[in-house]
Amino acid sequence: MSGIVIRNGQVVTALDQYVADIYCEGGKIVAIGENLEVPAGTEVVDASGQYVLPGGIDAHTHMELPFMGTVSSDDFFTGTAAGVAGGTTSIIDFIIPSRNQSLVEARDFWMNNAKKACADYGFHMAVTWYGEQVEQEMRRVYREDGISSFKVFMAYTGAIGVDDDEMIGVIDTAASLGALVTAHCEHGLAVQALQRKLVAQGKTSPRHHAESRPSWVEGEATNRAIMLARCSGQPIYIVHLTCKESLDAVVRARQEGQLVYVETCPQYLLLDDSVYDKPDFEGAAYVMSPPIRPKGHQEALWHALSCGLIHHVATDHCPFRQHDQKVMGLHDFTKIPNGAAGIENRIALMYTYGVATGRLTLNQLVDVCCTQPAKIFGLYPRKGAIRVGADADLFTYDPAASSTISARTHHQRVDRNIFEGFEIRGAVTNTVVAGRLAFTKGELRVERGSGRYLHRV
Amino acid sequence: MSGIVIRNGQVVTALDQYVADIYCEGGKIVAIGENLEVPAGTEVVDASGQYVLPGGIDAHTHMELPFMGTVSSDDFFTGTAAGVAGGTTSIIDFIIPSRNQSLVEARDFWMNNAKKACADYGFHMAVTWYGEQVEQEMRRVYREDGISSFKVFMAYTGAIGVDDDEMIGVIDTAASLGALVTAHCEHGLAVQALQRKLVAQGKTSPRHHAESRPSWVEGEATNRAIMLARCSGQPIYIVHLTCKESLDAVVRARQEGQLVYVETCPQYLLLDDSVYDKPDFEGAAYVMSPPIRPKGHQEALWHALSCGLIHHVATDHCPFRQHDQKVMGLHDFTKIPNGAAGIENRIALMYTYGVATGRLTLNQLVDVCCTQPAKIFGLYPRKGAIRVGADADLFTYDPAASSTISARTHHQRVDRNIFEGFEIRGAVTNTVVAGRLAFTKGELRVERGSGRYLHRV
Amino acid sequence: MSGIVIRNGQVVTALDQYVADIYCEGGKIVAIGENLEVPAGTEVVDASGQYVLPGGIDAHTHMELPFMGTVSSDDFFTGTAAGVAGGTTSIIDFIIPSRNQSLVEARDFWMNNAKKACADYGFHMAVTWYGEQVEQEMRRVYREDGISSFKVFMAYTGAIGVDDDEMIGVIDTAASLGALVTAHCEHGLAVQALQRKLVAQGKTSPRHHAESRPSWVEGEATNRAIMLARCSGQPIYIVHLTCKESLDAVVRARQEGQLVYVETCPQYLLLDDSVYDKPDFEGAAYVMSPPIRPKGHQEALWHALSCGLIHHVATDHCPFRQHDQKVMGLHDFTKIPNGAAGIENRIALMYTYGVATGRLTLNQLVDVCCTQPAKIFGLYPRKGAIRVGADADLFTYDPAASSTISARTHHQRVDRNIFEGFEIRGAVTNTVVAGRLAFTKGELRVERGSGRYLHRV
Amino acid sequence: MSGIVIRNGQVVTALDQYVADIYCEGGKIVAIGENLEVPAGTEVVDASGQYVLPGGIDAHTHMELPFMGTVSSDDFFTGTAAGVAGGTTSIIDFIIPSRNQSLVEARDFWMNNAKKACADYGFHMAVTWYGEQVEQEMRRVYREDGISSFKVFMAYTGAIGVDDDEMIGVIDTAASLGALVTAHCEHGLAVQALQRKLVAQGKTSPRHHAESRPSWVEGEATNRAIMLARCSGQPIYIVHLTCKESLDAVVRARQEGQLVYVETCPQYLLLDDSVYDKPDFEGAAYVMSPPIRPKGHQEALWHALSCGLIHHVATDHCPFRQHDQKVMGLHDFTKIPNGAAGIENRIALMYTYGVATGRLTLNQLVDVCCTQPAKIFGLYPRKGAIRVGADADLFTYDPAASSTISARTHHQRVDRNIFEGFEIRGAVTNTVVAGRLAFTKGELRVERGSGRYLHRV
Repeated sequence: MSGIVIRNGQVVTALDQYVADIYCEGGKIVAIGENLEVPAGTEVVDASGQYVLPGGIDAHTHMELPFMGTVSSDDFFTGTAAGVAGGTTSIIDFIIPSRNQSLVEARDFWMNNAKKACADYGFHMAVTWYGEQVEQEMRRVYREDGISSFKVFMAYTGAIGVDDDEMIGVIDTAASLGALVTAHCEHGLAVQALQRKLVAQGKTSPRHHAESRPSWVEGEATNRAIMLARCSGQPIYIVHLTCKESLDAVVRARQEGQLVYVETCPQYLLLDDSVYDKPDFEGAAYVMSPPIRPKGHQEALWHALSCGLIHHVATDHCPFRQHDQKVMGLHDFTKIPNGAAGIENRIALMYTYGVATGRLTLNQLVDVCCTQPAKIFGLYPRKGAIRVGADADLFTYDPAASSTISARTHHQRVDRNIFEGFEIRGAVTNTVVAGRLAFTKGELRVERGSGRYLHRV
Repeated sequence: MSGIVIRNGQVVTALDQYVADIYCEGGKIVAIGENLEVPAGTEVVDASGQYVLPGGIDAHTHMELPFMGTVSSDDFFTGTAAGVAGGTTSIIDFIIPSRNQSLVEARDFWMNNAKKACADYGFHMAVTWYGEQVEQEMRRVYREDGISSFKVFMAYTGAIGVDDDEMIGVIDTAASLGALVTAHCEHGLAVQALQRKLVAQGKTSPRHHAESRPSWVEGEATNRAIMLARCSGQPIYIVHLTCKESLDAVVRARQEGQLVYVETCPQYLLLDDSVYDKPDFEGAAYVMSPPIRPKGHQEALWHALSCGLIHHVATDHCPFRQHDQKVMGLHDFTKIPNGAAGIENRIALMYTYGVATGRLTLNQLVDVCCTQPAKIFGLYPRKGAIRVGADADLFTYDPAASSTISARTHHQRVDRNIFEGFEIRGAVTNTVVAGRLAFTKGELRVERGSGRYLHRV
Repeated sequence: MSGIVIRNGQVVTALDQYVADIYCEGGKIVAIGENLEVPAGTEVVDASGQYVLPGGIDAHTHMELPFMGTVSSDDFFTGTAAGVAGGTTSIIDFIIPSRNQSLVEARDFWMNNAKKACADYGFHMAVTWYGEQVEQEMRRVYREDGISSFKVFMAYTGAIGVDDDEMIGVIDTAASLGALVTAHCEHGLAVQALQRKLVAQGKTSPRHHAESRPSWVEGEATNRAIMLARCSGQPIYIVHLTCKESLDAVVRARQEGQLVYVETCPQYLLLDDSVYDKPDFEGAAYVMSPPIRPKGHQEALWHALSCGLIHHVATDHCPFRQHDQKVMGLHDFTKIPNGAAGIENRIALMYTYGVATGRLTLNQLVDVCCTQPAKIFGLYPRKGAIRVGADADLFTYDPAASSTISARTHHQRVDRNIFEGFEIRGAVTNTVVAGRLAFTKGELRVERGSGRYLHRV
Repeated sequence: MSGIVIRNGQVVTALDQYVADIYCEGGKIVAIGENLEVPAGTEVVDASGQYVLPGGIDAHTHMELPFMGTVSSDDFFTGTAAGVAGGTTSIIDFIIPSRNQSLVEARDFWMNNAKKACADYGFHMAVTWYGEQVEQEMRRVYREDGISSFKVFMAYTGAIGVDDDEMIGVIDTAASLGALVTAHCEHGLAVQALQRKLVAQGKTSPRHHAESRPSWVEGEATNRAIMLARCSGQPIYIVHLTCKESLDAVVRARQEGQLVYVETCPQYLLLDDSVYDKPDFEGAAYVMSPPIRPKGHQEALWHALSCGLIHHVATDHCPFRQHDQKVMGLHDFTKIPNGAAGIENRIALMYTYGVATGRLTLNQLVDVCCTQPAKIFGLYPRKGAIRVGADADLFTYDPAASSTISARTHHQRVDRNIFEGFEIRGAVTNTVVAGRLAFTKGELRVERGSGRYLHRV
């Protein structure tokens, strides 16, 4: 395979910005400098007037996830392809065993599914129950598969959720491995109590999904997760944090000296709960957990991002089609499959509504979309960096372009886009994956199965 | 029975202070005024230069409680008598069924024990498990016995503690009755995890009891209790709150408009965790849950008291003798019976360290020791008030007296006093219980069994 | 003068509620009890089914105030009369010397104006400059006139505002007297800077008045006032607090143990800044300082009220007519006379939007409208109490009545009512002032000049 | 001048860590890579097993400052030399005109003094009064001298302090230039009031210096500075922040979306106010403003550092000799020259007590000591970076070394070291300044006057 050179772009890292050429060969970045001399036959991408960023990492995706009686509609191939179209070149997805299922058995299932990916992928292991077998299997997947992050669900009690006793066990086992625990923070039993009350009152529409999971129910669980980690002297990583109450819990903990990593997603930064009032069951497209929050929370998240309290903007990409999947909950919001697509639009949204509005610097965008997830999850500097020796995962962004998000044009395999109609400033113009130009001139050139598994230990 | 008149005292209520005579007859306050004319034969108490306060209410006691393999050392007679010696004329104790025991069966046991009390008594019903039977029995004791407050333990998991699912059930049932839920807030499983770690490290002394239950473990549970109450739109009452983290959770909730009642105890206001370093296993005397806190928390509690965020100063009176009870945990702090005596010294301590230091007004002392517990728990204005028609429960306090607390002189049936050596300004000089002079000139004149059960609905 | 008896009302105090008759004679409450026997000729008010409350105290009014080139449109007679119609029987107004004017000279001016009042009145002394003369005069009015509260304006720099150096002097002098300092908290220079910028941009409408005094400008000054008081170890009283930032400063201080008294007004509880968008310069009616706040602040104030962090709901009654006074600022909001009427509607608004909505108890209403201002400002128990010996200032409130607020029917001498159209539940039915029935059946029977000056030391 | 190569060090930046050689020539970094080929005659520094960091920047020093009747005891030569011995290769000092002195005149004085520096230096311009002349001179020094940061003192009222009106002017003028305002936050008048009270009580020792400037007096000013900046929509930079109250004000502002830069110093992280109790007037060595804080504040600062809320650890290097300078205040703490030395020990202290204890990562140390001050003050990437093209300012740090801080061995020209006796892990082994080896093997090889002025626009 011959090399590729990206010429004259404004190279942007989490720290710096400078004009340089980047020459890649053998899937790696081989040289960075001005006016690089490159072998004949090298593919040339002209990035004049454009930014060159490390390939995006999305540490929260759910490709082809069996969930709530159906399966999320992007598989590992289509989902990673959509990511590539949006500048994201690596994902960390989740292996989610059923309660009482062997972690190793679940691993095998997910590893097999993921083989079709066209970008590199890793896995967090969800721990959905606990006991001696689970402890042993946590150790085994850490050792065998380099899985160094374990997720617990404080929601979904009775299904994949764990209780606090189980969570303490997971934290302690992870601690002994030097692994990180991540937590979905909502008080599952409180949610169920609220659901019962709403349904009993005939309140069954998408709007009531949001009412059944108020921000303070998330805030409580965030506060509790942090305390449980503190009992073991461990850091914790909060997935998809959405609200002020949770942020306040994080700020309190950090002011006490505890390390708490925080992830949010574009939908929590950019949408408010008026989406649930859309007619024709359109609100179902926005049914996810935690739900989209009332006005005010979004601004709080932006401020937290700008002062470094949020480490990663992921997507929780988990699409379900409106016409045959979301519709399962037409008469009962508790049956609407939870989730939405997002992997393709993440970076453009963060550029448009973060950088272009002055809320974030370009360096910060790189930090939260590319570099921090790599650092936190054991991929840095192979991923998330533009350095000699790093993987040749890069993309160019043309700030002069513009477009409008639409399900009609996106590559995600789903019939709705929760950002439909959002104006975008700039555009991903080229994506290099493992040294190959996998997206250019609006066209995907991805190869099914070309993605590699990411061992993270 | 002839009447009694208290002459020329400074009558103090939660609102007012004025000089008046108080004439009591038939167990009630019959007249308040200057220079009251009274029937011949009326017993006269001269309260010139003294304060006259409504009889104290202690809404948190555990008389003859079977706990941790032993029984608390004051029974209902000796315990209420000690209260009378200290100006406290009513208690609200706890019926605590075992897990899976019938609430009604437990009620019968406790009601029978309490017959020996020499001051009026009510009961909170602890709910230590939940299900259809419990729900029915909650309704029954509310209806039959006027028990309008139900307590849950978030600590003591596996014994009398409930999980969040059970707690939600208790809150909802109480809500349907218009009853109040009170909560002991410590995260039981976290405590057990910390206990296991400490014991595994050979850390088994009284000091480690405190380390196994850090303030942030209480703060978490307080925050959670408040959230669970919020899910049902209910107020909640936090028993023996001890620390800043819990106060902060309360302040957050109150600033959001939720009604949270707070109780603390003198030991949390006046002692710090250096008590656990006393030699010769003396620290065991201070083993209670929550434990005595590090320096700093006390001041925060005083400030919260002074601005009205704390409603009641109770005692959690639950004495265990050092030589044959506390000693059960000589080699393992988890086996030390939890609790200490306090009912006799409460009001004098609050006067000395609250009023005399300027931290509280006399009106506030009456409010938190006498009036608020009556209002919150359905006894006002029968109790907690100096008004015509109220029960003739009163005491006089001579601010000019002074003394020193000691187990050698107290009436509590226990060999240690956790306030040993504390200087006291002022003294309870006379206590009138149901119109009878039950304590005067340093002598108790109480009658076993004279106390009446308080129906609170 | 013969007596008056109010029969069968639900007597409500800050602490209690009970049915009783109240007999008044010689301007005092002489007896409280059931079925009181009264002299023949006693005027009888039947209060069956109604509440009987202590006469309201409004500790923040500005009658006939010379301000911004005009004079507030209620004089001491019409203003106190409007108060009587609304259940308010005492006011504390402000003597406001000009910068460099003698305090004593100003006192004489205000004392003379106030002689026409038909309800009792006291004065706070505003201290608008500082020096040896001022210090001496502060001592003199304290001693001669019983003026035990001194106010500083942190706004209005260059006019009646003081700088921090002067404020420190005022606090120290007040401290030496045992007097209380009250503060109008807005950063005057910051307001002026914002005004200059807005006016320079042609932003001159009532809406821009609000923009020139954002909540954080008040919050800053509140925080500073508290710190300056802390330097001298003194409490401080914040007048007309309006916003979250100020509340947060208060909560911080109280959690540190500092005593901070807080006053707010109905307009800050019930209106939001959308009022400034009313057409036809109607927004000018709402121009006051601090201004009406954006949505969100109101709820925070209600919550603070309900948990006792706010001590007094006053009115800052300071009316200006729309057609010839407010209009002075038609082309420049900085010239609109600041202020609005409120004394007449205060108690009914607090009942309707506080008690009837469940945000406040009736006891709390009495506390913040009647009792606390009396206690804080040295009038208790002469005022603010229903007790034998107290002044016979009372009013009855019929919870079954209803009405709508309107400038067409109010007694305030001004052509706009900022609560125009507000529905009211209940009504003040009778007001007794100094033992005389001064308002009944919707009619005022007040007598010009019958009000007495209140010496407060 | 021939080149220099640093071989085999662990190169550490704010983002990365990797092994490489660094070749410098002509005062610049010319190449970074493994096994670099370098010209013959190149000086070789072997950094095997050592870290290589960008030269430290200290953005807060006062060399040869005329202050309180004396002059700080390090001049620009000795002070920068001490910095070089400690790994600091650039400073930003302050031009401090007297009140009413021309800024340009002061600039000339300071520029002349600074010519003797042996490391690069820039200047902040202190603005100590305000008016049309000052505004014009602010513009002039920005334009002519590239002075892009202006400092105001909220303390030192009547001397170099400004009032809020002047501060608003400074902020607005800086805003129009795109310059940054930095603020010393203490309420000057409150400090003076407290000083007067203490001195009047005969409390004149170094301990009372601390009592005259409590943390809440700093917290107030920090809160106010932030608000004044917010009025103009500007960021602000808080110099030498020392306490929780100030941090809380910063956190509030950042959660509201305002950009606030924060600087602290090692003495505020590592010392507590027990230093003022040292015998023999030794406490005077620690007299600086703000003062060293009580226990508790230090931990809060460390936590804020670790979560990115503090941007720069500077020193406020401003030494005064004990025997002839500090002694001026022997009988009156207000006359003790304020300040202490620190430039030489900064990086070693941050390594020892930050990195080696696990509170900071090495990347964070580089960030707060080298990179952020360069970014904030317009020097990046010329300074604060290890990149091709950057200035060849570097130092090596040997983590295996150890030593003890002492005035007997330091290079600072002062007879006390406030960190006397502090153990140090690791050591600065070589410092390269502008491509020359200016410190090696414990010896300074600096050249008086070799430092260059840093134009920062």
